[in-house]
Formats: sequence, C-alpha cells, structure tokens
Amino acid sequence: MKFTEMLNERWQNAGSMLCVGLDPNPTRFPHELAGRSTAIYDFCCGIVDATADLVCAFKPQIAYFASCGAEAELTAIIEYIHTNYPKVPVILDAKRGDIGSTAEHYAREAFERFKADCVTLSPFMGFDTIKPYLAYEEKGAFILCRTSNPGGDDIQMLKVNGERIYERLARLAATEWNLSGELGLVVGATYPNELANVRRIAPNLPLLVPGIGAQGGDIHACVQAGQTANHTGMVINSGRAIIYASAEDEWKDAARKVAIATRDAIRVAAC
Amino acid sequence: MKFTEMLNERWQNAGSMLCVGLDPNPTRFPHELAGRSTAIYDFCCGIVDATADLVCAFKPQIAYFASCGAEAELTAIIEYIHTNYPKVPVILDAKRGDIGSTAEHYAREAFERFKADCVTLSPFMGFDTIKPYLAYEEKGAFILCRTSNPGGDDIQMLKVNGERIYERLARLAATEWNLSGELGLVVGATYPNELANVRRIAPNLPLLVPGIGAQGGDIHACVQAGQTANHTGMVINSGRAIIYASAEDEWKDAARKVAIATRDAIRVAAC
Repeated sequence: MKFTEMLNERWQNAGSMLCVGLDPNPTRFPHELAGRSTAIYDFCCGIVDATADLVCAFKPQIAYFASCGAEAELTAIIEYIHTNYPKVPVILDAKRGDIGSTAEHYAREAFERFKADCVTLSPFMGFDTIKPYLAYEEKGAFILCRTSNPGGDDIQMLKVNGERIYERLARLAATEWNLSGELGLVVGATYPNELANVRRIAPNLPLLVPGIGAQGGDIHACVQAGQTANHTGMVINSGRAIIYASAEDEWKDAARKVAIATRDAIRVAAC
Repeated sequence: MKFTEMLNERWQNAGSMLCVGLDPNPTRFPHELAGRSTAIYDFCCGIVDATADLVCAFKPQIAYFASCGAEAELTAIIEYIHTNYPKVPVILDAKRGDIGSTAEHYAREAFERFKADCVTLSPFMGFDTIKPYLAYEEKGAFILCRTSNPGGDDIQMLKVNGERIYERLARLAATEWNLSGELGLVVGATYPNELANVRRIAPNLPLLVPGIGAQGGDIHACVQAGQTANHTGMVINSGRAIIYASAEDEWKDAARKVAIATRDAIRVAAC
C-alpha cells in the first residue's frame, strides 16, 4: 500500500495526527533498563506498544542509532512495528541529501535495508537529491521546507523574486517534483505563519511537523494553520516529551498518558 | 593534529591535491574478489595501499556502506588508514544536516564511532546544523556550497540582494561560521566560474572538489579557478575513475596508474 494511503487510513481510523518520535538516548532511559544489553530495543518497543493505537506514524531518528552502532536494533524495531502494527507507517528521519548513485544507495538503505515506509530528505542539492527515491513508487518522502530551528532562517527565509525559498520548495514539491504523488513537506510547528503559507501553496500534501512538545510549538496554532480542508493532512511529531515522560517503573504508562493528551489536544484543535 | 594542519602538511610533503573517493560498489569489484565475504574491506584497503602515497586525503562515502549494512567494514577501513598511513586524513562524506541533539549524535557517529578527521555537511537548516561539529576542535567540516550536479541550481544559484546562495554560504563559512578555523567548502569541478568566485570570497578555505573523472569536470580549469595563492588549497576528489580502473587481476596497478596521472595533471595545472 502507498505511504499516503496508509497515512490517510490512519488519520481516519485512528483519528490521530500524532506521530511519536523514536529518539533513543540511553542516558535518559528508564532506570529499569540500565545496563541491559537490549535496552535500545526494549525501550523503543515498549514505547511502541504503549502508543501504537494513538498514532498515525512512528518516526525513528537514525542519528540516535548511528551514533552508537545500533543499526541491528533499528532494523529489529521497524520489523517489530510492521509485524505487530502493520497499519502504522514508519518514517525514517534521515534528512539524506545526495545525488546519483549515492542517493540510490541511501534510498536502498532506507527502503530495502531498514524497510521504512517513508524517509525525510534535504533538498539543498535540488531535485537530483529527490528523484532516486521516487523509483520506489509506494514509498513516501518528506522534504525539508521550513524547519523548526532559528538557524532555518539562514537559507529558507531568503526571498527570491518575491518568493521565499521555503515557499518555492513547497510549490515545487506540490507540482513538478511530485512524480510519485508520495511527497510531503517538513514544516516546523514553531512558525505557524509559514505553516499556513505552505498549506496555501500545497493544499493536499502531508506535512510532517516537528517542534511541539520539548521544542515549544503551540499545538492549537499549528493545527489551525496546517490542517487540510477535511481536518487531516498533518503528521505532528512529539519525541522527548512523550518517550521520556518518566524514568520510573511506570514509564510506559507515563508515555501513554502524554501521548493521549497530545493526540487529544491535536484533535480538539482540528475543528 | 588539526585537520587543516594535516591537509597542509600533505599538500606540501606529498605534493598532491588528489583525494581518492572510496565508494565500494560490489557489482563493480574486481573479479578476484567475487563472492569473498571480506570483499568490501579487501577492495578498499587494496585501493588505499595502491594510492596512499599519491593522495592528500581519502574520502569514504558512507551511503555505499549503509546500503548494505557494512558499518563494521567502514570502521575497519578507516582504522586501517589511520594505522598504516597516519598522515593521510580521512573525510567521511555523509552530508549530514540536522540540528540540536540529533546533530550531536551525527557528530559522534562521524568523529567518535568512525573516527573520521573530517565530515561533509549540508547547510540547508543553517548554522544550527554546523555548530555541534565545531565542538570537536581538531576535526574538519566541508559545507556543501556549489555542488557538481545540474539540480544544484535549484537552490544554490538563486540570487538574494545581488548575492547568490552559494556565494552567501562561502562568505559565512569564511567568516562568522568558522569558529574552529576548520571549515571548508564543497564546490563542484563542473563549474569553474563559481569555483573562482568561491576562492575570491574565501581566499584561504580548503575546497573539496568533486566532479572530475567520471563526472567530466576539467582539471586544468578547476585548479586554475580554485587554487590558493600558494598553489594548494584544494582536495580534488576522484572516485570511480580510479577505483574501478580495471576489474582484472592488475586492478591495484591500474588504480595506481590512473591516480598518478590524475595527481600529475593536477600538479601541472597548479602553476
């Protein structure tokens, strides 16, 4: 099934635009996992079990696995999600950005090795960096557009012929770049005005929205700005605020409670 | 020793601005390695032995290792270079581009896990994507500036207040972003005019120059445009044209011959 179809089904059937970010940092793990050789796997699968019915997607961030050589764990965690929650798509947050045969190798990494349903990409090198991923017709790709960090201004807010770079990227992703129909855009929750602009330029593209929770973006403002006409269209990521809600023995329950509250806050805002 | 010091010593003592790109693609390996479980390691170390005295740096491209789960081989190959050719710096071509704690994890991947001396980075998310790497004071970082592919135009050539994006990046990398003194820029050999512009804006930064060899960039034009006042300053990468010079039993000799010819062509041009 195509990534956007999975996402649509999930928005409708789970009634959720919440995405839980899997950013496993062993220094913040629950006490009961301390010293366990399978801690990364146990932690991520614990969070998955506690939140799968509440989410439209999971988003593992590959840097957290790469820094400690945990590629085998990443593979196993994605397999665990596919096996136990086959309707929940997995977005591999990798922000790869390269061209030609190198990009083909990165696409193979994301889709064949790790079996992700979708990947995040950086457009700095242009359409050449996106095209090799479109050969995988069912797979999705979220392109960085307006990121949630202050330094995002350095390039994305520059204006060319009356159009800012992030607006230009939104326009390209919504039109000539979207050969597979499976493109989406990454737009930070910290900039609701730009989120509204992107939604105007790309009325139907899925938007991956980081920046709520630990990063401080306002849920109500960002949903109002970014939802589609039918009150869906967003994949709103929260990582640390959910997965590190508690380090005590009740860590899974604590994560679930924050996930429910976040899903519901998004639901209330999407009216 | 700082990355730029290693590079300077290498330019002087080896008299070479050639960098050999280690892009191991098993489908193009020499026949004698077919079916060998250690083929990636044997191939890369064979190329390293055949060319180490001819180069200023080696540049493994991490995508080729990631696509087939060969992180252990990448670790071992970099260790092999450090042990046997300790004066030759290793540039990990990863083009990472993320922020905050994610970027810290990517920096750890490059410098602590793989023990590279330098990494390539994408600046699309601004200075926030560069800063975490500067905490490693001896390590280098080449920032994408003007890439060798046609799609590079999509963003890099856009003009803002009379300055193109790639020129702006060159200016920032040469001044306010360069807190460690260890930044460089990636500028494709296929655009000698832009290479000359970058050199004008950043008279002393090392330039990593892909795009000669298989990609067709002209060595003479690119060296004339990109060299510093003392006829160094460039890390000119050639991958496929050297490492796949032959698939027959004499593959190491063939790689060495092409590497010598390329180094010498660069030398002749740098006058």
